Amino acid sequence: MAGLFLTFEGIDGSGKSTQARMLAERLDKDGFDVVATREPGGSPGAEEIRRLVLEGDPDRWSAETEILLFTAARRDHLERLIDPSLAAGRIVVCDRFADSTRMYQGLRGPGLRQIVDDLHELMIGREPDLTFIIDMDPATGHARAKGRQGSEERFEDFGTDLQARMRTGFLELAAAEPDRCVVVDGDRTPEAVAADVAGIALERLRG
Amino acid sequence: MAGLFLTFEGIDGSGKSTQARMLAERLDKDGFDVVATREPGGSPGAEEIRRLVLEGDPDRWSAETEILLFTAARRDHLERLIDPSLAAGRIVVCDRFADSTRMYQGLRGPGLRQIVDDLHELMIGREPDLTFIIDMDPATGHARAKGRQGSEERFEDFGTDLQARMRTGFLELAAAEPDRCVVVDGDRTPEAVAADVAGIALERLRG
Ligand SMILES: Nc1ncnc2c1ncn2[C@@H]1O[C@H](COP(=O)(O)OP(=O)(O)OP(=O)(O)O)[C@@H](O)[C@H]1O
Ligand SMILES: Nc1ncnc2c1ncn2[C@@H]1O[C@H](COP(=O)(O)OP(=O)(O)OP(=O)(O)O)[C@@H](O)[C@H]1O
Ligand SMILES: [Mg+2]
Ligand SMILES: [Mg+2]
Repeated sequence: MAGLFLTFEGIDGSGKSTQARMLAERLDKDGFDVVATREPGGSPGAEEIRRLVLEGDPDRWSAETEILLFTAARRDHLERLIDPSLAAGRIVVCDRFADSTRMYQGLRGPGLRQIVDDLHELMIGREPDLTFIIDMDPATGHARAKGRQGSEERFEDFGTDLQARMRTGFLELAAAEPDRCVVVDGDRTPEAVAADVAGIALERLRG
Repeated sequence: MAGLFLTFEGIDGSGKSTQARMLAERLDKDGFDVVATREPGGSPGAEEIRRLVLEGDPDRWSAETEILLFTAARRDHLERLIDPSLAAGRIVVCDRFADSTRMYQGLRGPGLRQIVDDLHELMIGREPDLTFIIDMDPATGHARAKGRQGSEERFEDFGTDLQARMRTGFLELAAAEPDRCVVVDGDRTPEAVAADVAGIALERLRG
């Protein structure tokens, strides 16, 4: 049996990590062989690259160098965890993947989206089978992310304008790739969102 | 006045670091404004990436991930040190640059050289003004590298066969880019090699 590669995407505080965890738990309870992972990171090497990128001064890396480092982390994660898991028929549930780089890095300046896409084509070349895009008003996401403990507090850096452009970007992505992307309204209770997500995932798994 | 970007390349133990240091000292003594640097590394961020790549188990990164990390380091080095120095009219003397990635990483497996070249074109897009390729028999280079203190001892991993293919690869590079590359016979005293190198560099600087 071939595995299934599921990812969660959306703006800051939209509930990606919460929903990725809830879906992995649900599928596990239903008897599926699930691997829960995240980006940036997800494999020992990629987690080290994550630390290198996220620690220290935010100006430490240019956008271009940061995209290269994220692509290196993704390549390692893919080779060491995602591809072998899928080859073994497992279900991979990943909190963020390439769409995050397309939006978070790609929208930060002119020409960057093209660099993200070119690097993806050259070094990654894989898309998830199904991507949940959790849609939400940036102000609501911001309030949630601020309320959360242990937050990496990157929202302030990115700003409300970028969050709004990312929201639009994610919706455009979903429109351009309707077979891969499903937009889910994130402005509901975690349980209500999770029920929708599980329904769609199970339909794909059983269909 | 425009700066000048000089690099040293060649197989293991051929004398790149020795000659880069000797040329930088000579040009400095002659009153030129010199920046001596090296790869992988050369800027604070790139040195951190260097540590990440070179420390630990040699199998820790796949060739592809390693090429991405070296390209990230090079991009940082270029943005933070090389380009600003050249823009300020300085002479940059660099111990290894992109040709090392072309040979050391590019010759280690099928398809890798193409990946190195594609990533270079996409993310670096710059060549040195002048590259000294120190040519030498691999056995001589090996004996020298073994004799050196504090060696990173990578020769054993790479093996004599790869060193021989690298030597050929460097000579092919020189033949393909005769305006940029000068082949220097490295099997002489350091002073004899340095005299040739300085003569060629000064001709380029004064010409
Ligand atoms: N449906 C929801 N309703 C209310 N609060 C929620 C909901 N889902 C998640 N939260 C809370 O909002 C905060 C952000 O959620 P979460 O960390 O899952 O979002 P995220 O999209 O992963 O954020 P980030 O972009 O920072 O990684 C958390 O404190 C979480 O408990
Ligand atoms: N012309 C020379 N004749 C004899 N020994 C030399 C000569 N040049 C350098 N050496 C010695 O050989 C060893 C290797 O030299 P060096 O470190 O400069 O080479 P390298 O090309 O930078 O090596 P690596 O590929 O490991 O970085 C050192 O111990 C150095 O002192
Ligand atoms: Mg999260
Ligand atoms: Mg050296």
